[in-house]
Amino acid sequence: MSTNPIHTDLDYSRPGKQSGHLAIPYSHNLGGWANLRVPVSVIRNGEGPVVLLMAGNHGDEYPGQVAILRLWRELAPEDVTGTLILIPCLNPPASKASTRLSPLDGRNFNRCFPGNPNGTVSEILAHYLTTVLFPMSEYVIDLHTGGRSMGFLPCAHMHLVPDLAQRNRMLRAAEAFLTEVTFLYADVAGTGLLPTEAERQGKIVITTEMGGAELVPASIHRQCQAGLRNVLIHCGVLRGKEKSRAEAGLGPARWVQSLDREDYRFAPESGLYENCVELGEAVKKGDLLGQVFSIENPDREPAKVWAHADGILVANRGPSMVGQGDCVACVAHDVDPRTL
Amino acid sequence: MSTNPIHTDLDYSRPGKQSGHLAIPYSHNLGGWANLRVPVSVIRNGEGPVVLLMAGNHGDEYPGQVAILRLWRELAPEDVTGTLILIPCLNPPASKASTRLSPLDGRNFNRCFPGNPNGTVSEILAHYLTTVLFPMSEYVIDLHTGGRSMGFLPCAHMHLVPDLAQRNRMLRAAEAFLTEVTFLYADVAGTGLLPTEAERQGKIVITTEMGGAELVPASIHRQCQAGLRNVLIHCGVLRGKEKSRAEAGLGPARWVQSLDREDYRFAPESGLYENCVELGEAVKKGDLLGQVFSIENPDREPAKVWAHADGILVANRGPSMVGQGDCVACVAHDVDPRTL
Amino acid sequence: MSTNPIHTDLDYSRPGKQSGHLAIPYSHNLGGWANLRVPVSVIRNGEGPVVLLMAGNHGDEYPGQVAILRLWRELAPEDVTGTLILIPCLNPPASKASTRLSPLDGRNFNRCFPGNPNGTVSEILAHYLTTVLFPMSEYVIDLHTGGRSMGFLPCAHMHLVPDLAQRNRMLRAAEAFLTEVTFLYADVAGTGLLPTEAERQGKIVITTEMGGAELVPASIHRQCQAGLRNVLIHCGVLRGKEKSRAEAGLGPARWVQSLDREDYRFAPESGLYENCVELGEAVKKGDLLGQVFSIENPDREPAKVWAHADGILVANRGPSMVGQGDCVACVAHDVDPRTL
Amino acid sequence: MSTNPIHTDLDYSRPGKQSGHLAIPYSHNLGGWANLRVPVSVIRNGEGPVVLLMAGNHGDEYPGQVAILRLWRELAPEDVTGTLILIPCLNPPASKASTRLSPLDGRNFNRCFPGNPNGTVSEILAHYLTTVLFPMSEYVIDLHTGGRSMGFLPCAHMHLVPDLAQRNRMLRAAEAFLTEVTFLYADVAGTGLLPTEAERQGKIVITTEMGGAELVPASIHRQCQAGLRNVLIHCGVLRGKEKSRAEAGLGPARWVQSLDREDYRFAPESGLYENCVELGEAVKKGDLLGQVFSIENPDREPAKVWAHADGILVANRGPSMVGQGDCVACVAHDVDPRTL
Amino acid sequence: MSTNPIHTDLDYSRPGKQSGHLAIPYSHNLGGWANLRVPVSVIRNGEGPVVLLMAGNHGDEYPGQVAILRLWRELAPEDVTGTLILIPCLNPPASKASTRLSPLDGRNFNRCFPGNPNGTVSEILAHYLTTVLFPMSEYVIDLHTGGRSMGFLPCAHMHLVPDLAQRNRMLRAAEAFLTEVTFLYADVAGTGLLPTEAERQGKIVITTEMGGAELVPASIHRQCQAGLRNVLIHCGVLRGKEKSRAEAGLGPARWVQSLDREDYRFAPESGLYENCVELGEAVKKGDLLGQVFSIENPDREPAKVWAHADGILVANRGPSMVGQGDCVACVAHDVDPRTL
Amino acid sequence: MSTNPIHTDLDYSRPGKQSGHLAIPYSHNLGGWANLRVPVSVIRNGEGPVVLLMAGNHGDEYPGQVAILRLWRELAPEDVTGTLILIPCLNPPASKASTRLSPLDGRNFNRCFPGNPNGTVSEILAHYLTTVLFPMSEYVIDLHTGGRSMGFLPCAHMHLVPDLAQRNRMLRAAEAFLTEVTFLYADVAGTGLLPTEAERQGKIVITTEMGGAELVPASIHRQCQAGLRNVLIHCGVLRGKEKSRAEAGLGPARWVQSLDREDYRFAPESGLYENCVELGEAVKKGDLLGQVFSIENPDREPAKVWAHADGILVANRGPSMVGQGDCVACVAHDVDPRTL
Repeated sequence: MSTNPIHTDLDYSRPGKQSGHLAIPYSHNLGGWANLRVPVSVIRNGEGPVVLLMAGNHGDEYPGQVAILRLWRELAPEDVTGTLILIPCLNPPASKASTRLSPLDGRNFNRCFPGNPNGTVSEILAHYLTTVLFPMSEYVIDLHTGGRSMGFLPCAHMHLVPDLAQRNRMLRAAEAFLTEVTFLYADVAGTGLLPTEAERQGKIVITTEMGGAELVPASIHRQCQAGLRNVLIHCGVLRGKEKSRAEAGLGPARWVQSLDREDYRFAPESGLYENCVELGEAVKKGDLLGQVFSIENPDREPAKVWAHADGILVANRGPSMVGQGDCVACVAHDVDPRTL
Repeated sequence: MSTNPIHTDLDYSRPGKQSGHLAIPYSHNLGGWANLRVPVSVIRNGEGPVVLLMAGNHGDEYPGQVAILRLWRELAPEDVTGTLILIPCLNPPASKASTRLSPLDGRNFNRCFPGNPNGTVSEILAHYLTTVLFPMSEYVIDLHTGGRSMGFLPCAHMHLVPDLAQRNRMLRAAEAFLTEVTFLYADVAGTGLLPTEAERQGKIVITTEMGGAELVPASIHRQCQAGLRNVLIHCGVLRGKEKSRAEAGLGPARWVQSLDREDYRFAPESGLYENCVELGEAVKKGDLLGQVFSIENPDREPAKVWAHADGILVANRGPSMVGQGDCVACVAHDVDPRTL
Repeated sequence: MSTNPIHTDLDYSRPGKQSGHLAIPYSHNLGGWANLRVPVSVIRNGEGPVVLLMAGNHGDEYPGQVAILRLWRELAPEDVTGTLILIPCLNPPASKASTRLSPLDGRNFNRCFPGNPNGTVSEILAHYLTTVLFPMSEYVIDLHTGGRSMGFLPCAHMHLVPDLAQRNRMLRAAEAFLTEVTFLYADVAGTGLLPTEAERQGKIVITTEMGGAELVPASIHRQCQAGLRNVLIHCGVLRGKEKSRAEAGLGPARWVQSLDREDYRFAPESGLYENCVELGEAVKKGDLLGQVFSIENPDREPAKVWAHADGILVANRGPSMVGQGDCVACVAHDVDPRTL
Repeated sequence: MSTNPIHTDLDYSRPGKQSGHLAIPYSHNLGGWANLRVPVSVIRNGEGPVVLLMAGNHGDEYPGQVAILRLWRELAPEDVTGTLILIPCLNPPASKASTRLSPLDGRNFNRCFPGNPNGTVSEILAHYLTTVLFPMSEYVIDLHTGGRSMGFLPCAHMHLVPDLAQRNRMLRAAEAFLTEVTFLYADVAGTGLLPTEAERQGKIVITTEMGGAELVPASIHRQCQAGLRNVLIHCGVLRGKEKSRAEAGLGPARWVQSLDREDYRFAPESGLYENCVELGEAVKKGDLLGQVFSIENPDREPAKVWAHADGILVANRGPSMVGQGDCVACVAHDVDPRTL
Repeated sequence: MSTNPIHTDLDYSRPGKQSGHLAIPYSHNLGGWANLRVPVSVIRNGEGPVVLLMAGNHGDEYPGQVAILRLWRELAPEDVTGTLILIPCLNPPASKASTRLSPLDGRNFNRCFPGNPNGTVSEILAHYLTTVLFPMSEYVIDLHTGGRSMGFLPCAHMHLVPDLAQRNRMLRAAEAFLTEVTFLYADVAGTGLLPTEAERQGKIVITTEMGGAELVPASIHRQCQAGLRNVLIHCGVLRGKEKSRAEAGLGPARWVQSLDREDYRFAPESGLYENCVELGEAVKKGDLLGQVFSIENPDREPAKVWAHADGILVANRGPSMVGQGDCVACVAHDVDPRTL
Repeated sequence: MSTNPIHTDLDYSRPGKQSGHLAIPYSHNLGGWANLRVPVSVIRNGEGPVVLLMAGNHGDEYPGQVAILRLWRELAPEDVTGTLILIPCLNPPASKASTRLSPLDGRNFNRCFPGNPNGTVSEILAHYLTTVLFPMSEYVIDLHTGGRSMGFLPCAHMHLVPDLAQRNRMLRAAEAFLTEVTFLYADVAGTGLLPTEAERQGKIVITTEMGGAELVPASIHRQCQAGLRNVLIHCGVLRGKEKSRAEAGLGPARWVQSLDREDYRFAPESGLYENCVELGEAVKKGDLLGQVFSIENPDREPAKVWAHADGILVANRGPSMVGQGDCVACVAHDVDPRTL
C-alpha cells in the first residue's frame, strides 16, 4: 500500500493546544502545485481518552461545523482530559459551495471509506482517517444533519453494531446528546460510510441528525452545542459534570427505528412537492404524507405519497421542487430500548 | 405604446370555470417560435368583486403557489361570487429552477413594473398585469415568503399607502390573513414592485411573507391555505363566513414595522453564518444577532452582527454560507395600530 | 445619432473581388480591446444591381452559410454584373456555437432591427445593415432554415408587403428559388425582423426556409445552392440564363400561407414528443399531429396535439424532448396566387 | 461480489401486466437519499419465450423509446405469449437532457458492461442487466439510432457471433425488422457493449439503427413501430402473424458491412461541415463525401473528406459544426448473405 | 432623475480617517435583499485638494488595487493635506472572479459612464461617481493595467483634453508617475469611459497602464506604489517632497502615442499565438509581430501579424490561445512633448 | 492486458518526413464515434538516436508547443540523423481551453503514468507512450513551463535518478539547454509522472520550466527555441555544432535544488496576493515573500508568507487571486555540481 500523501505539521502527542491543518496535494487549473487544507486543532492535556470530533462530512450540514468552530476558540488545554482532535469541516470545498458532495471530485465523502491513498482528494482523506486518526482514537464523533435536501427531527443516531459491549457504550453516548428522540437507522443504500469503518475498528461512534434543511435556526445551534458538550463530558475528554436527561428536563430516551426500506418514501414523479405532515407528528398507515403538483398542468391530479405504516415522521423534504425518486419522507417506529 | 404580445384563449367575462394560460412569445436555442406559458384559471359566478390572486412572483416562494394550485382544483363556480382569477405561478421558469430571479432574463419580476411590451418575458408579463389584469380587479393579492434566502415570521404585510380609505381597507384585509404579527415595510431598495403599481391604481393590495427558507413545513402550508381562504371570504369573492381573529384563537392584530434602513442587518463579510436569535424573539440593542466564521481560519474572531435597536426578529438568514452584504436579519418594532 | 463604430477596409465601390470583414468592437474577459469579425466579400463588375446576400442570421441555420461560402470561392468578377455583397455568416459566435441566439449578448439577431450604434454587438451590426448596406442595395437576400429546433418543408417565403409593385417583384423572385412550395408567413411574435426593415426601405427581399433540423442532408445543400444561383441570375447580378420552373421539372409555384396564430401548434406540456405526420403531408382538422409522452410515468395518457384545420404540414419539431410552449407543428393552407 | 443495490417491486414471474421501476440508489446535492428510477413493465401470459425489450441506452436515441412507450400502453396480457419485459428508457437522465452520455456519471452506458454493483449508476444498472435480466431472457432487443451526432440509413444490425446456430437465429430476427438494408458492424472502438455481453451469454440479440439525427420524422417512428411488432411476433412473444418481407413490399434482405476501420471517415479538422452525399447513395473510391469550411477564413480551401473505397453511404454527420476527429461518414459494402 | 440608491455611512467632510463602504442594493438568488459593498476610506486633514483615488475599474487589474490597499493601512490623517478618498476596488465581484467585466451584470465598468441610478449595479455605481464623487474632487486617479488579456509597457497615460490649462496640469501629473514612457491614447472603440466623464467635468485625471498580464511581478508592484506616492505628493494631498525624474534616475519623459486605428493589431484568426517582439522593442514597418499556429493542423502556414509602421511595441498578447479579432499588439510612435 | 486502442497511420521506421496523428477513440455528446487526434510528425534519416520530443503535457504551457510547431515546419529529413518524433501538443483539448488539466476527463496528464488502455483518453495516451514510444526512444524530452498558475525562472530541470551513468548523461543534456540556472526538484506531491516512467525505463530524460505565467514574452520563446535546438544537437539527432555555455555567453551551469517540502510556500488563506520578491532574487530566512489582502475588509492585517530559509526565488504566483493552499513561491538552494 502506498504512503498517504497528506502532510501536516501537527503533533498529535504534544501537550497543549495546536492549530494546524491537513494538506492534501492536488492540481487544479489555477494551481499546479496546490493543497487542499483541512483545518485541525489538537488539544491535549495529560492522560485520558482520545476523542476525534468532526463535522462537515457533507458540506451542506452546518450546525456541527459551527459547534466545533466555537469549541476551537473556547477550549483551553485545562478544559480537557486526554486528547481532543477537532476537525470542524472535513469537506471545505463542499461547505464553501453549500453542497453535499465535494465539488472537487464529485464524491459523497460518506461513501469513500476505507479510502485510497492514490485516489481523489476525498479518497485520500478517507484513507488518512482510516489509517491514522481512527486507530489512535477511542471515540469517533461525526456530526450530521439532514443537509439541504431533508428536514430532520433533531436526534442522535446509530447503527446496531454486533458487539454488545460496543453497542451498549454507543447507546449510552447517544442518549447523552439529550435529544427527544434517538434513532436507529439502516444503510438502505450503499457502503463505504465513515461510521461503518470506525465501528469496524471497534470505536465508540457517535453521530447525529441535528435537524436539517438549509436554514439553521438559533435553537438548533443551541441544542447542538449543548448536546455536544454533554457528550464530550460523557466521554471524559471535557471536564465538567454530565447533565442527566432528567436534569435537562427530558424524559427517558425515546428510541425509534427505520430499518425497513419502505420506511423511506420517495417522490413518485418530478414536480412541486407539498409536505402535508409535520416532523414529529404521528402518522397512520394510509395518511397523506405529501403530494406532487404539476405547475405546467394544474388541472392534473397531484401524485400522492402515502404512509405505508403507522409511526412518526422523522424526516421530510427540503426543496419544494423534487425530482422523481428523491426521498420526501422517513417514517420511524418506536422500539423498546430494553430489547436493544 | 406597442400592443402587448401576450396571447390567451381565456375570456375573463365568461361565467363558469376556465383553465387556460397566458402565452408570452420568445425565442430560445431549442425553440425558435416558442411561448412561455403562465397557467391561469378564471372562475366567475354572477356579480361581485374581481379578485386577482397570484403567487410565484419570485420562483422560490412556494406556499402561495401550492395554496392556489389547491384552490384551482377545489373551487367550483358555485363557491364564488364575482370573479376569481388564479395565477398559481407568475414565474414558472424560476419556480422550476428553484430560483428567485427568472433564469430566462435574469430579472427580479418584482422590480419590473409597470413593464414593457417590447421587453424581456418578465417585462412583457408585468406590462400585461399593469394594463390588462390590474385595471379589471378590485383586489390584488400577491403571496410571498422570504424565499430561499431568508426565514420570515409568517405575516401579512403592506405599505402605508397615502389614500386613507384604501389604507384602511388594506389594514382590515391584512388582519383577515390571521397571522400573529402583521408587518409594515418600506422599499429600502429599488422601485418597480408589483404591489406599488397596483396600489397606484387604487387597488386593495394584500401581500404576505408566509414564512421563508427552502423547506416549507406542513404547518406553514396549512396556515397559508387557511389564511388565504379567510381573506377571500373577507373580500367577498368566496362564499362562507369570515373567521374573526378571536374565533381563530388569536388576539388582536399585532402590528410591527421596519421602516428604517438600519432595521435591515447585513453580513459584514463572507463566511459561515450562525443565526443566534430565533424568529419572533425579542432583542435588545446590542444583542448578538449572528456571527460569521471563517472556515479557512478558525482562529480568527468571527465577525459579529449586533442589534442596533430594541425590537423583535422578523427575518433571519437562510443559507449558512453568506456573501458580504447579504441581509441576515430584520428587526421590527411594535406600532400602535390606532396610529395607522 | 451616434456614428456606427464598425470598421472595415472594404470599399463597396471598387471594381473586382475583395475579401474583408466588418470589425465590431467589444470587450470580453480574454480580450480587452477585441473586435468581432464578420467576413464579407464584395464582387463588383460594371453597372448593374446591387445584391446583398446573407446567411447565418440565426447561427444554427447552415445551408445558406455553405452556399455563400461556396460562391465566395467560386465566383470571379467576370461572373457578375453589378455588385454582389456576400456575408456568409452574420452571426459567427452563434454559428460556431451551433445556437440560434448570439452567445455574446443573448439576442435573437432577427429581432434587433433597426439596431442601435451604442448597443450590443448584435444591435450594432443591425444598425450597420440598416444604415449602410440596405440603402445601397436593390435586393436583400437572407437565407434561413428551420434551425435546430424545427424541420421545415424547403421553401422560399415572404411577407405580403403593401406596395404592389414591390410585392409583385418579390413574388417573382421567390418563385425563382424553384421550391415546390412557396410560403406566406405572418410575424406572430415580435417585431424587429431584418426583412421587415429592408421591406420598409422598399427593397426586394428574398428569404427562405431551406429545410430545417440539425442534420443537413446533401440534397438540401444542393437545392439551396442551385436555387440561390437561379435567384441571382433572376436578379441580374449573376450572368447566365434563368431556369424556368418547367425547365427545372417543377409545376407552377404552389403558394401556401399560415397567417392565423392557430396555424402554429405548441407543446401542451414538457416531455418526449412524437411527430405523427410527415412534412408535406395533408392533414384534416382533428388529425393527431403529435403527442407528448412522460418518460417518468409511462402509464400516463400522452398529451395530444391536434390539427385545428385542414392544410399541409410545413414545419415540425426537431429535438424530441420538448418544453411546454415550444412550437411543434405549423399547418399551412393553399392560396390562389392570382389573389396575391 | 457485492449484492446489486437495485430495488424493485416487480415480480418477473407473476402473470398479468405490471408497471414498476428499478430504483438505483445515489446521492446528489438536492437529494441525499435519492434513487434514479428506470420504468419497467412486465407482461406475462403463460409459457413462452422471455423477451427483454429496451431503448434509451443512449439518451438521445428516441424512436425506440417512443415505440416501447406505445407498447407499454397498448399491450394487454392476452396479446402476449410468454414474458415481455419493457424498458422504454435505460438512461432517463440522458434522455431528459437530450444527451448520448449520462449526465449523472458522464458514462457511455454502452461501454459499461458487464457492470459493477459498487460503481456509478450506469455501472450498477449494467451489472443488474448482466446478472439478473439477461440470464432470464431468450431474446435481448436493444433499439438504437445514430443519435444526435449521426444520420443513419434505417437498419437492423448485428455482430457476426461465432456460434453458428445463434448467428443464424440472429440473422433471421434482424431480417424480420423489415429494413431495406441490414448491417454488419465491428466494434472499432472500445469494449463493454451491451449486445456483446448478451451475445456472450448466448442470447438472440437484436439491435437497430433506426435512422438518426435530432429530428425524428413520423415515417421513422412508423417504421420502427411496425418493424418492432413484426420482430416480437417473430420471437413468438406477441400474438399475430409475422409479415414476410415480400408481404411488406420489400425484396430479400440486402446485407452490407463496415468491418474495416477505414470505412469510418473522420473530420480532418474543426469547422463547418457540408454533407455532399445522400444516405443510401452509392459512392466510388475518391468521391467527395463532405468538406469542412472555415467561417473565420472563407478564402481557405475547405478540408476534404474522400471515399476510400466503393460502397454505399450508411451514416453521415448530424451537427454541421464538427470537431476534428468526429465521425462524418460511414461507407458500407455489400456482402452475400449466403456467406454469413 | 431618480435618486441614486447607494447608501453609505461615510461622511466625506469629517476630519480624520474613516473606513466604510458604498452599499449598492441588488437581488440575487441567494440574497433577496442584498447589497454589493464597495470599500471606501476617507482621510481628511485640514484644507487642501480633494483627491479621488481608485483601482479595480476592471477586476483583473491588480497593481493599483494592491497599492491602494497598502495606503489604506499605512496612511494616518497627519500624512494628508486636504482629503484623500481611497477606493481600492471599484468592481469587487470582478476582482474576486479575476475577470475584466462584472460577473453580476456582464458590463465593462469603463463603458458605463455617466451611469444610471435605475440601472444595473455597474450603472448605479457609475452614476454615483458622476454625480457625487467627481463633483467634489479636484484630482481623479484611476489605476489600470493591461489586465489579463494584454501585456503593457508600464506607463502613465492620458487623453489630449481640449482645455489647455487642464491638459497641461494632466501632462505634469502623468510625468510625476515616473514611468520611462508616457502614453497618449485614443478611444478607438466605444464611449462611456470613466476618465472621459471626469475630464468633461474639468478634473485633473491621472491614469496608468501599470504593466499587464495575469502575473504581477514584485517590480511592477514596487513601481506602481512608488509612482503613486509621488503623484499624490505632486497633487499636494500627501505630505513629502516630490521626487523629480532626475532624482529617480530617469531622463525627461518620453511621450509616445497610438492615435491611429492601425496602431492596434488584431489576430487574423483563432489559434495559438506566438509573441515575436518584446515590449519596448523598436519595430520597423513589415516586421513580424507575431504568428498564429493551428494545433489541429501543424502543416498549415501560420497566420502572420505584421507591423504596419515604424514604432515601439507598447502592448502585446497575454493568453497564448487567441480568438479572431483579439488585440495582439499595439505599436506607438514618439511625439515631441513641446507640441502637446 | 488489453491492446491499446490508439490508431495511427504513421510508420515510425519509415525514412523521410511524415505528418500524422494518434487517434484515441472516445464518445462525446456531439460525436458518437469520435477520435481525439494528437498530431505527430516523424522525421527519420539513417542510423542515429531516436528522440521523442513532446510539449503540451499540461495544456496551458505554450513555449514548448510553439517551439515544436516551428521545428515541424522547419526541419527536413536531411537536417536529422536518426529519428526525431515530434508531438507538439500531448493534450490538445487542454491546450485549446487554456487549462492545465484535460477538459475531457479532468485528469492531470502528468499523473497518469504508466497509463491504462481501458481508461480515459489521458490514461490511454499515457499507456501508449509507456508501451510504444518510450521503449523505442533513447531520449525523452518533455517541455514544461510554470503554466498559467506559476511564474518560473527559466531552467532545465531533472530528478536525481539513482543510475549514475543515466544521471550523468541527464546532467550534461540539461546543461545543453543553456539556461542560467539548472534545477533539481523532488515530487512533493503525487506519483505517475511522465518523466518518472521514462527514467524507470532508463531513458535520458530532459525537461524544462521555460518560464511560466499566462503571457509568454518573445524572449522566452527565443530562449526555448534556441535551447531546444542546442539540446537536439547535443543528443545527436539534429545536425550542427553544439554551442558551449561559454559560446552562448553563459558561465558554468548553476545548479540549484528544492528538495525539501518547506521550499514550496503556500497561500495561508484565500485573497488578493502580492508578490514581494522578484524571480531570481536572493532571499534570507524571514524575508517577506508575499502577502494576502482581503478586498472585503481592507482594515485586516494581510496574511504574510515568509521565507523559511535562505535561497533564491525560482517560482512565484501567477493569478493575483489565490485560493488557500495554492503554491505562491518556491525557494531553491545552490548545490555544488561536483556532488551530483
